[in-house]
Amino acid sequence: MFTSELLSENPDSATVERNVADNAKLMVREAIIENLDIQTKTFVIVDMGCSVGPNTFFAMQNVVQAIKHKYHSTCSQIEFHVFFNDHVTNDFNVLFESLFSDHQKTYFAAAIPGSFYGRLFPSRSIHVAYSCYALQWLSRVPKGLIDKTNKGRIHYDGASIDVWNAYVDQFEKDMEVFLSARANEMVHGGLIVLVLPSIPSEQHSKIGYRILTFVESSLIDMVNEVSQLITLIILSLF
Amino acid sequence: MFTSELLSENPDSATVERNVADNAKLMVREAIIENLDIQTKTFVIVDMGCSVGPNTFFAMQNVVQAIKHKYHSTCSQIEFHVFFNDHVTNDFNVLFESLFSDHQKTYFAAAIPGSFYGRLFPSRSIHVAYSCYALQWLSRVPKGLIDKTNKGRIHYDGASIDVWNAYVDQFEKDMEVFLSARANEMVHGGLIVLVLPSIPSEQHSKIGYRILTFVESSLIDMVNEVSQLITLIILSLF
Repeated sequence: MFTSELLSENPDSATVERNVADNAKLMVREAIIENLDIQTKTFVIVDMGCSVGPNTFFAMQNVVQAIKHKYHSTCSQIEFHVFFNDHVTNDFNVLFESLFSDHQKTYFAAAIPGSFYGRLFPSRSIHVAYSCYALQWLSRVPKGLIDKTNKGRIHYDGASIDVWNAYVDQFEKDMEVFLSARANEMVHGGLIVLVLPSIPSEQHSKIGYRILTFVESSLIDMVNEVSQLITLIILSLF
Repeated sequence: MFTSELLSENPDSATVERNVADNAKLMVREAIIENLDIQTKTFVIVDMGCSVGPNTFFAMQNVVQAIKHKYHSTCSQIEFHVFFNDHVTNDFNVLFESLFSDHQKTYFAAAIPGSFYGRLFPSRSIHVAYSCYALQWLSRVPKGLIDKTNKGRIHYDGASIDVWNAYVDQFEKDMEVFLSARANEMVHGGLIVLVLPSIPSEQHSKIGYRILTFVESSLIDMVNEVSQLITLIILSLF
């Protein structure tokens, strides 16, 4: 479980992700050993929302090791094809640079650019889909938010129940799209591992997400600076 | 066949590649229709040495269309997984940006970074491997070249027969590594399409490769400029 204490101790996003992945490491390992039910010589694994690393490499290595442990006695020559997925605008050049500096990697590596809120792979082609600390990012600003009072905010923390519900509605729609796409892409007997932050529903307006509040104020500062810059440019033109 | 006339008319490398791919288009199409012998619902295709596009997109679209044409009557729901391969230092960010601005693409797209002079894919996972105007780039400076007289050159054009033989030896070694890797990766009944420039062996020192001569002189200019810059910096330090 992701806690506000964890966030307050480690306000850096990548560090939080790493801590979350570390905490989930044993759970992921156990989930694979207990639930993955596939006989194949090549396992296809994907990290959905991988960013530029190195958290994604630790996570994928953990998945690979767990599969090796599970199938070691029954299949001597297993190969792994690991796909790193994120938005087209992710810096894949940096990802690849980090990836190839790791000479210990025991898998073939590829990248799949594009939003995981839609199809990314051919049918029945993924054995393990993994996503850590990525699915909380919605595909768009919630539709129902336009008429609600949440101006200058990027989150529902501290807002009204209407704002909260608009976010919940969008999350449900996004999850449906995500799961529907994976339902086509997953091999029968495969495994989806989702790690994402959560809070008890009754505390929707009580728990402070320091990271999001910080990101929010930074974005507002940036918008203000750009607005001032544009005003200055316009004034200098006349 | 790649000719010196073509080079002299179109000294720009990307344009030459596009012309070569265009000229090879029908041959590639015929080769696929006549020789590809696979029954599958998902075809895996790879462009080895793809660069940043858009030539790679035209080429892959041609391969996809040829396969669709061949299997249209026997398989109604074919899917395509197209992999774009090039060195880790290739600009994949630019490639992805161009790729996703093409809303007409009819395949799932992925990238495989790494040298094709080695394994890139799991065993028996590729149906069509394609490489256009890329395999003439050797994996390294030919070993035997160190003792030969070819100083300040990047090519054998106009050099002695010893220099020519050093290049031939390296090319043979590289091709063996390339074909050995593909032998493991190709699905039985799959197809490898290689398009690369060539000249008749007896004309090894007669045909002028204007592109390479141009690249060569540009590289020498760059080396000289950097040398002068370093000299200036050293002088300014004392």
